[in-house]
Order: sequence, then C-alpha cells, then structure tokens
Amino acid sequence: MRQMTDTPKNVTAILADFVLNSRFENIPEDVKKESVRTLLNWMGVAVGGCKHESVDIVLKTMALSNRSGEASILGRDEQTSGLNAALINGISSHVFDFDDTHLATAIHPAGPIVAAILPIAEEKQISGAEFLHAMILGIDVTCRLGQSVSPDHYSVGWHISGTAGIFGAAAAASRLLGNNPQQTRWALGLAATQSSGMREMFGSMCKSFHVGNAAKNGLMSAMLAGNGFTSSEQGIEAKRGWANVTSTKQDYSFITEGLGEKFLISENSYKPFASGVVVHPGIDGCSQLRDEHDLKPGDIESIALKVHPLVLELTGKDSPTTGLEGKFSIYHACAIAIQHGKGGEKEFSDEAVNDPIAVSLRRRVKPEIDLDVPADAMGITITTKDGRTCEKYIEKALGSLDNPISDEQMDQKTRDLCKPILGSANTEKLINTCRNAAGLSNAADIVTAATP
Amino acid sequence: MRQMTDTPKNVTAILADFVLNSRFENIPEDVKKESVRTLLNWMGVAVGGCKHESVDIVLKTMALSNRSGEASILGRDEQTSGLNAALINGISSHVFDFDDTHLATAIHPAGPIVAAILPIAEEKQISGAEFLHAMILGIDVTCRLGQSVSPDHYSVGWHISGTAGIFGAAAAASRLLGNNPQQTRWALGLAATQSSGMREMFGSMCKSFHVGNAAKNGLMSAMLAGNGFTSSEQGIEAKRGWANVTSTKQDYSFITEGLGEKFLISENSYKPFASGVVVHPGIDGCSQLRDEHDLKPGDIESIALKVHPLVLELTGKDSPTTGLEGKFSIYHACAIAIQHGKGGEKEFSDEAVNDPIAVSLRRRVKPEIDLDVPADAMGITITTKDGRTCEKYIEKALGSLDNPISDEQMDQKTRDLCKPILGSANTEKLINTCRNAAGLSNAADIVTAATP
Repeated sequence: MRQMTDTPKNVTAILADFVLNSRFENIPEDVKKESVRTLLNWMGVAVGGCKHESVDIVLKTMALSNRSGEASILGRDEQTSGLNAALINGISSHVFDFDDTHLATAIHPAGPIVAAILPIAEEKQISGAEFLHAMILGIDVTCRLGQSVSPDHYSVGWHISGTAGIFGAAAAASRLLGNNPQQTRWALGLAATQSSGMREMFGSMCKSFHVGNAAKNGLMSAMLAGNGFTSSEQGIEAKRGWANVTSTKQDYSFITEGLGEKFLISENSYKPFASGVVVHPGIDGCSQLRDEHDLKPGDIESIALKVHPLVLELTGKDSPTTGLEGKFSIYHACAIAIQHGKGGEKEFSDEAVNDPIAVSLRRRVKPEIDLDVPADAMGITITTKDGRTCEKYIEKALGSLDNPISDEQMDQKTRDLCKPILGSANTEKLINTCRNAAGLSNAADIVTAATP
Repeated sequence: MRQMTDTPKNVTAILADFVLNSRFENIPEDVKKESVRTLLNWMGVAVGGCKHESVDIVLKTMALSNRSGEASILGRDEQTSGLNAALINGISSHVFDFDDTHLATAIHPAGPIVAAILPIAEEKQISGAEFLHAMILGIDVTCRLGQSVSPDHYSVGWHISGTAGIFGAAAAASRLLGNNPQQTRWALGLAATQSSGMREMFGSMCKSFHVGNAAKNGLMSAMLAGNGFTSSEQGIEAKRGWANVTSTKQDYSFITEGLGEKFLISENSYKPFASGVVVHPGIDGCSQLRDEHDLKPGDIESIALKVHPLVLELTGKDSPTTGLEGKFSIYHACAIAIQHGKGGEKEFSDEAVNDPIAVSLRRRVKPEIDLDVPADAMGITITTKDGRTCEKYIEKALGSLDNPISDEQMDQKTRDLCKPILGSANTEKLINTCRNAAGLSNAADIVTAATP
C-alpha cells in the first residue's frame, strides 16, 4: 500500500534538483544492473528496427530539410535549413506580441502559416498568387479548428495560436508541396499528434516559441506525409483525436459551414500599438486629443480615465521600469500617446519607459473604474495646466474589427518596425513587394525584400 | 445567429479536400485584399523582432545542432545532426514495439531518453557510468510523471510514452549538458509545452514517431534552456501546467515519494516476443511444451487454449496475411512457438506468416474463452496425431515482472535482432560493450559498437 503524505507542489524544481544532485555511488547495485539490461535491450531493438520504412522516410526527409544555407531568416543575413527558418521566423514574428489577431479565438494566425511556407517559396518556384492563396487557406483551417473547440480549449490552458496554428501550417504546406488527398490527411494527423503549447508559459520566451514550433512542425508534417509517412486519417475528429483530447467542446459545424465561401482571414485584426488590446483605447484617445488640441507634455495637468476593471487588473503597473512592464501599464501607455502620438515597439522600449518626460506624464494618469465602460472602451478627460479641459470617449479603438488600421497606417507601422533593421529604401521595397504580392511570378521575392 | 446543421464528422478529409481543391479565382476580392494586409503586417513584425534575444538563442542552438555528420544512426552508415539522430534512433527503437515497458503506466521508457543522450555522448566525453546514471534518472523522471497522471492521462487519449518521455529526455540531457537548476527547470518547462502524441495514431508510423519526437524535442529543450531560453519554472504543476491540462488526475506523491531511494527502472520489463503481451503466455507455453515433449509441427493435431476474453478481442485474427497482422493473431503466435520455439521479429515477418507450416499449424489452434483465466495467463492443451496429450498453465509468462527474461535470453534476443544488421562479430561486441557500460571511459563506444 502506498503511503499518502502531504505532497509539495513545486515538483518541477524538486525533479530538477534531484536530477542534478544525484550521485552515482548512491545508486543501488540492483538498479545499476537493471540499467545495463535496459540499455542492452534497447540497443538491440534500435539496431534491429533501423531498416524499417518509417526510418527511411524520416531520414530522407531530414536529409533534405537539413541542408543549411537554403532558407532565409527575415531581417538577418544568416541562412539556415527550411525547418529552422520556419521556427525562427515564427518566433521573431510573435516576440513583440504585435502580430495579427483573430479576435474570436485569440489566435495569431499568420505566424505559423507564413513562417511555414516561406521556406517552400525559397525552395521551389511559387507565384505570389499561389503563396497568398495557400496562406488564406491555412489561416482558414487554423481559425475554423480554433472556433470548433473555443473557448474550452483555450480555457483549459492550451495556447491556441500554437495548437491550432500547426494545422494551418501543415495544410498550406501540403498544398504548396503538392501532397495528394491522403497525404494531406496524414499531414493533418501528424499536426494533430504534435499539437502543443500551454498558456502557463506566457511571460517567458516560450510564448513566441509556440508560434515558431507550430510553423516548423506543421511544415515537417507536410514534408513527412508527402514522403509517405503514415498517420491517422481522422486526426481531428476521431474518438481519441485532437478535438476530443484537448477540449470539452467540439462543434464541427464551425469547420464545415460556409467552407470555401466565407474565409476567416476576413476577421483578422492588426494592432496599431505594441501592447495588449485593453490599453489600445487609451493610446488611441490620448493620441487623438494630442493632435486635435496640439497638446505638449509640459501642458498636461492630469489625464483622468474611466476604465473597465479588467484594464487595471491586466495593466495596472504604475511604475514600470522595463519596456515589457510598460506594455502592462495603462499609465505608460497614455504617457507615450501624449509624448509621441503613437505606441509602436519603440515607445515600449526600456529607454522609452525610463524617459523622464514619460515618467512625469505617467504620474498624471488617474484611472478610475467605471462599471458602465466596456473592456474595449475608455473615457478620457485631459486637463491642462492653464485650465483647459478636453475629453473623448473611445468606443471602438483603432485596430478593432470595427475600426481597422488603414493601409497607410499599416505601411507606417511596417516602416517603424523595419527601417532600423533593413534601412529606408529596402523597407519601401518590402512594403511594395507585399502590396503587389498577387502579381509576383516568384514569391521568393517577398523573402528577398525582407533580408538585408 | 449561426445556423446549426447536421455536421459531417469526417472533418479531416473535408479540410484536406478543401485545401487541395480551392481555386484562387474563386476567392472573393475582399479576401484577397485582406490577405495582402495580413502578409504585410506579418512581415513587418517578423523583421522588427528579428534581433530579439530569443531569436539569437534559437539561432545559436540550431546552428550548433544542425551540423550534419556529427551524430550516428544506429545500425546504419549515414550520419546526421544530433537532433535528427535522436528522432531517428527513437523511431527505430519502437518501430517493432519490442522495446522495454514500464507496465504500471504502459510507458516504453528507454526510447526517448537513450535516443536523446546518445548524441551528447558522441559530442562530448562522457563516461559509461555518467551515461547509465543519466538514463536511470531520466527513466525515473518519466515514469514518476507518468504515474502521477495515470491512468486518466492515457485513457483520455495521450500516448504516454511520448508525452511523459520528453520530460525524462530533457532531464537526462540537462544533466549531461551541465545545465544549472534554473536551466533544468526551464528545460522541463520546454518539455511540458512540447509534450504531445495521441493514441489515435496507433497502427500508423506515428506511434514510433512519438518516441523519436520526445527524444528530439527533449534534447532540444535541454539545449535551448542551457543557452538561456526561458520557460515557466512550474511547467508540470502550475494551474495551467502539464499535469492539469492533460489529465483529470494529478497525484504528485508519485513524483516525490522515495525520490532517490526507489528507482522505477527497477520495474522495467523486456519482451521476449515481438508482439503484444496478451499472446505472450501462448508463445511461452507452446515453446515449453515443444521442448519438453520434442513436438514437431507435423505431430500436432490440435492446440486448445483457455483464454481471457481480452485475448480474442485484441488478437483474434485467425487468418493473418502480413507480419503486422500476425502480431495480432493468437493463432499465429502459437503456431510459430511450435514451429520455431520462439517469437522474435523474424517469426512475425510477412514471410513467417505465409509459411505453409505456420498456416497449417495455426488452423489447429482452438482458443476458448474462460472467465477464470486472467488476462496475463493462459491454459494450453496440445493433442498429437498419435493420441498423446500434454498441457501447461502459464500464470506468469516469460517477460512479465515476476518472470523476467534472463541475461542469456536478452543476449540471444539482441543477437536475433542485430546479426542481420551488424554481423555476428560486431553484434557480440555490442553486447559486451553494453554489459560493461559502467566501466567505459567514453560512452560513445556504445554508439560505435552499434554502427556498421
């Protein structure tokens, strides 16, 4: 009978310490003897199985994918293998949390899919139209799957951008690699059985890793399936398939209804500001008041806010000291809106957060909870030192589905992000190449435009 | 309002067909326009994020791991990167389902762990004792985690050899790579957030893929963490950590009780026969009767069996035509025991299944359900054409925890598996190298002995 005792909960730390501190001389002799048996038995089966077809397929696929120098890393001059490029480009695209959002599911859909198919565009001749088309379809697959298990799947703890993203990556890559229907079903099965990523990792580097991993593993799923690696053909809907194993809700009508007529990329949204969406009305409103009333930082006496409770719960840091903390500060968000009139990644840098002007301004921000204000809205009243008052109620902030950023604003966002990396001329070239992507005879031009 | 309709359940096939059959000219113009916005917005953030520390760490780790020709594939003459070697060796070791089993959890523990640390042994000087020690600890971590969530985790559909195996791989690799405690906690977090593999894939190549993937991703977790890639430090036990997200049961006392005193590798078992365990008593018993009574295939009139219902449910195929089907046939299992006196991988080949002697013998096997016979036991009565009768009741079959295979039987199993690959002399060298592993000054000798 096993004895029950109070169990410490920090088991990750306990296991880490155990593994590092164990000493071989303290291992019992019979355990050492058993370890030799385990090793020998395993070596025998590993050698014995080494000529199996599945080994041949993986070896062939990895040998192909392992050629270094065939795939580009966006914004950098290193080259790597296609699978590693998918991983790395997926990570860099989500690392600022500034990429696109499918609001109904909280999925960031472009990352896993575009990062997966860029290396294919570099490997084989694909037109810009084929590239965009594969992206549209991959995003549709990912968002439809996400909806079929939302919100339960996300609530239980899965990071849905990774867990659903891998399917879109596998689907888009399958199309571009020329997989047949059975191979595409296998690719979706391989995606199902690699689907992973947990919300517990938010706040660490793993959050963007999930996006890159979904790209890499989705691409690998399509490559393996195309070479004949078998999987379940009902990976999504089977009794022990993805939907049942990872969610208490499965509504497959979200997958099938309007398929090929309604495309969920139409519900994609783009952040104007490099922070969580709850502070967006604050940045939007303060920027507007700044421009309309020609407000300067030195003019401001106070910035009074009426906010939903969630705003202070999520972004209540009143004295941030790093850029990352600044993203979780409604005080800093309103300060930089007055100071700079925008809230890009630069305005959420360590330097911007510690700028004395921003520090002085954020002390004048006075948020007050108002239960009548929805989470995506905000009331703003600015009082100047010379006694003027101006106010604005933001109901649908810039970047929301009802108030999307304009093409010009997106171009400017891209400039702010890319100019420090690519320089001005290449940044304009990247913008033009993307804007004209549908007409490109070779989608690899997109990659070329995005590397120094 | 969304309209609810009867939803077809074969959504994997529907999505695969949709992705392959969609035509770009049928995509609405507004969708095409949105795809350009999605692309441009994504390229901007991907380029903008490309100098982030997390990108640098992954790039550095992958550049190191991507060197081809540094790691060996067991039994073959190709060389590949360390991560790919972990993947491939893990697959080949499980492809016959003939590797070791921790019966309490159904985990095949050696695969993810040994395949993960072999490339480390080739990369840096590690003694045989250090290698065995890391393996013992990794298996302990994997089996303890498996027990903490068993049986719910497996019941819901997770393939526990992969999902729990990745932790042991990350732990063992962390120790051998010299990770500090925080890095080891991160490695376990990276393992948690990549843990994947579903039972739905059983019967396809994905089953052994799960084992290889756990090895590869566990090794990558340790490498990334060692280079400073951050993760949760409570990846296992957090509210939205691995145990809560993937199981309805979490009993952490299985992890902590007796840690460092009791080692679960002591509960490891090794199959004498290359098939599911329910037919093991049949092969064991028939082989014994064959030897004790000098039975030849032509002597046999009938082989009457008393079996638990599960035996016919799982292995009721009376006319198998392939080696794989033969593994699910109690008829074939008893036939080859009489014919060959053993049941290795060769006796479950396509050729062996279609051998006329085996076909003739299996028609004489008459199983009968007996509710008094436990699932791991079997009653056998053989009648010969000249009217003799001999019988045996197998209570604990060879290979069970209470009746493990001997060292000599394991050596012979290894010979049967490896001689066709490595030849006789090298096979003996491999056996001797493993048997003397604790005294090796360089654990890479194990790999050398296992390659042609």
